[in-house]
Amino acid sequence: MPVFLNSADPGFETAFGALLGQKREEAEDVDLAVAQIIADVRARGDAEVIDLTARFDRLVLTQDTLAFSDDEIAAEIAKVSPEDRAALELAADRIRAYHARQKPQDDSWTDASGATLGWRWTPVSAAGLYVPGGTASYPSSVLMNAIPAKVAGVERLVIACPTPGGVVNPLVLLAAQIAGVDVVYRIGGAQAIAALAYGTQTIAPVDKITGPGNAYVAAAKRRVFGRVGIDMIAGPSEILVIADGDNDPDWIALDLLSQAEHDASAQSILITTDAAFGQAVAAAVAKRLEMLDRRAIAGASWRDNGAVITVQTLDEAAALSNRIAPEHLELCTSDPDALSQKITHAGAIFLGQWTPEAIGDYVGGPNHVLPTARSARFSSGLSVLDFMKRTTLAKMTPAALKAIGPAAERLAISESLQAHGLSVRARLDRLND
Amino acid sequence: MPVFLNSADPGFETAFGALLGQKREEAEDVDLAVAQIIADVRARGDAEVIDLTARFDRLVLTQDTLAFSDDEIAAEIAKVSPEDRAALELAADRIRAYHARQKPQDDSWTDASGATLGWRWTPVSAAGLYVPGGTASYPSSVLMNAIPAKVAGVERLVIACPTPGGVVNPLVLLAAQIAGVDVVYRIGGAQAIAALAYGTQTIAPVDKITGPGNAYVAAAKRRVFGRVGIDMIAGPSEILVIADGDNDPDWIALDLLSQAEHDASAQSILITTDAAFGQAVAAAVAKRLEMLDRRAIAGASWRDNGAVITVQTLDEAAALSNRIAPEHLELCTSDPDALSQKITHAGAIFLGQWTPEAIGDYVGGPNHVLPTARSARFSSGLSVLDFMKRTTLAKMTPAALKAIGPAAERLAISESLQAHGLSVRARLDRLND
Repeated sequence: MPVFLNSADPGFETAFGALLGQKREEAEDVDLAVAQIIADVRARGDAEVIDLTARFDRLVLTQDTLAFSDDEIAAEIAKVSPEDRAALELAADRIRAYHARQKPQDDSWTDASGATLGWRWTPVSAAGLYVPGGTASYPSSVLMNAIPAKVAGVERLVIACPTPGGVVNPLVLLAAQIAGVDVVYRIGGAQAIAALAYGTQTIAPVDKITGPGNAYVAAAKRRVFGRVGIDMIAGPSEILVIADGDNDPDWIALDLLSQAEHDASAQSILITTDAAFGQAVAAAVAKRLEMLDRRAIAGASWRDNGAVITVQTLDEAAALSNRIAPEHLELCTSDPDALSQKITHAGAIFLGQWTPEAIGDYVGGPNHVLPTARSARFSSGLSVLDFMKRTTLAKMTPAALKAIGPAAERLAISESLQAHGLSVRARLDRLND
Repeated sequence: MPVFLNSADPGFETAFGALLGQKREEAEDVDLAVAQIIADVRARGDAEVIDLTARFDRLVLTQDTLAFSDDEIAAEIAKVSPEDRAALELAADRIRAYHARQKPQDDSWTDASGATLGWRWTPVSAAGLYVPGGTASYPSSVLMNAIPAKVAGVERLVIACPTPGGVVNPLVLLAAQIAGVDVVYRIGGAQAIAALAYGTQTIAPVDKITGPGNAYVAAAKRRVFGRVGIDMIAGPSEILVIADGDNDPDWIALDLLSQAEHDASAQSILITTDAAFGQAVAAAVAKRLEMLDRRAIAGASWRDNGAVITVQTLDEAAALSNRIAPEHLELCTSDPDALSQKITHAGAIFLGQWTPEAIGDYVGGPNHVLPTARSARFSSGLSVLDFMKRTTLAKMTPAALKAIGPAAERLAISESLQAHGLSVRARLDRLND
């Protein structure tokens, strides 16, 4: 059974605090093993990647077969049904349209001193996307990672996707093709991250690595951070639904279960102003669980991490939500737009009962790579900006330097940075000649 | 002597590759010590922070004196000269004006399907700025970290600044006051980062930590990343100057030295189309070095990490610069704006000979916290965006769900995520009733 809380109960603050602090995922301590793998890949390159792929994925590769060939890709993609292809294309079009609006603007202006200032955005040159293998090899994640990179203008975009036993999901390859990915390597784990970050004889290094992965992949990303850019370190998925009593309990139950089915560590929380509705949703969850193929996973998630919280007002719901800082937030109330104005920390908001979170996972347009584990307090979902960087620009005229240079010189002297001061002074002296 | 290279020489590519790959800073392995400090601060809170401050900073604090009092701040600030105050205020005004233009725009639109999509930016609630103690306690860095946070709308902004032996730089406290910092804690090292990330009895936790520090601070930031947001892990400073022969060698020498004087690990590189000018700059560096108080540091940096590279064309200079991806790039050529168009990776560009890099360190307006160690390939200088995050928004109408829901359902089924599909299907079925 999930936790049932009521904000009017005396023990609520303690219980809610416990829910907030709950550690849902024990981080496997793989850091030393990962450090060794990275060192080995740096030392031996392709040979090490090939050896580890044989060992972990039971797949014998050569330098020539590290990447899928065009023929192999074509053969796999031919297996995809026209309906699945159409769905992927619709998703890709919508994701592209949404992300195209994220392209940042350059700026340049001249201020009162005569200084011209500004900035310019440029894309990362090369990016690598990690795509897990096996059952978590999601074509939707390929689109969500690759399309923002392409919209940003990344020139070279590659995927690393392990294929245990040689098995690949054809939809992953189709999604890669639709998104414009250049190369798909059939490698995974820390060895793939090391190869992407440092390069090997056949794999050119990239500048940025994104995408979800297991504990080894996460530890490797943390280790190569600095050498390359990385996206966030993703934790288990979460949903918070704020609903009044005027909802279909079954719809809300399915929305809660659509996170729970990801992972036993996932978390689904309902906050409602109607205690009876909360009970009805819990009953609907129990009923729907019976019919799910993944009921063991979804059931464990709901039992161990689920919660139904009754509050007295929607303002109270918003305040609790901001403390949770959920990855996904559904607002199923009569005026979701007004309520959303009170939300300060959330990865993605789904407004109204006709917007199940699953729409956002696939076809809504916004990215489904979102901050987990309360990190929406300080970070955002994946976007075009993750594949771009900003160069600041400054240009002084002699007059501008005369106006602001003396202040720079004085601050440099106060910081005992003499050459800084002299580099300004030498120019000012010329102006006073 | 620095390295002298000429792109026309047969061995150039090898020598330039060595320069690019040169490791200027041996990362001290402090990770285990830092892990222990973080664990101890989490377990013992203020008591541990106080003990470590006594040990490392020879300063005995109590819970009541962890933060500077208003009276202490006022007494320190009273020591600042009017001229220094005016310089800091000019710098703050210019930094504020520049960063105010970085505030991102919210967006919202309704697409052809009837779906309303968009995003909204919100500030991080609380941020902590690390300011080193001792000689590297720079008031300019306080402004560069604190002002973007305030422009972003951060509500609670605190500083951690160690004060070895109880000594503080009054200009740091004044800069904090000018920038609107709420509290200044006199604590440093990994213990300060742990206290900011996890909180103690008297120090409320923050959501984001920025600012430079030593190896302990850097390792601690890396460890708390995920619990809180962090900015980049900064390495030693760098400058690349691209100059034609029509420059004053002394000016360029001072610009190179203004990085070299930071740190023996700093790197200053000149790329010029005029070999004789390169020699003249090297001679001017040698001469200027003699008069610098920090000549030991600046001299070691120039000797061990400096380089003068002669190229045949400015296009070649731009191409080499893009491989270096410098933190600071000065373009001292007849048409710096045209040349800057060819630059794809750089933290900050300073255009023309009247724009010494030191202007950007203090009063130009752009941020001086910039990506080092080639990380301008994938990251940007500090900005208002570092203290904000984006929440994506999606709202379906029944008609929009009817138009795009079936594709979501199909993709969910292809990924074996049954509840995802059912959450869409349950709603579609209602529409078809």
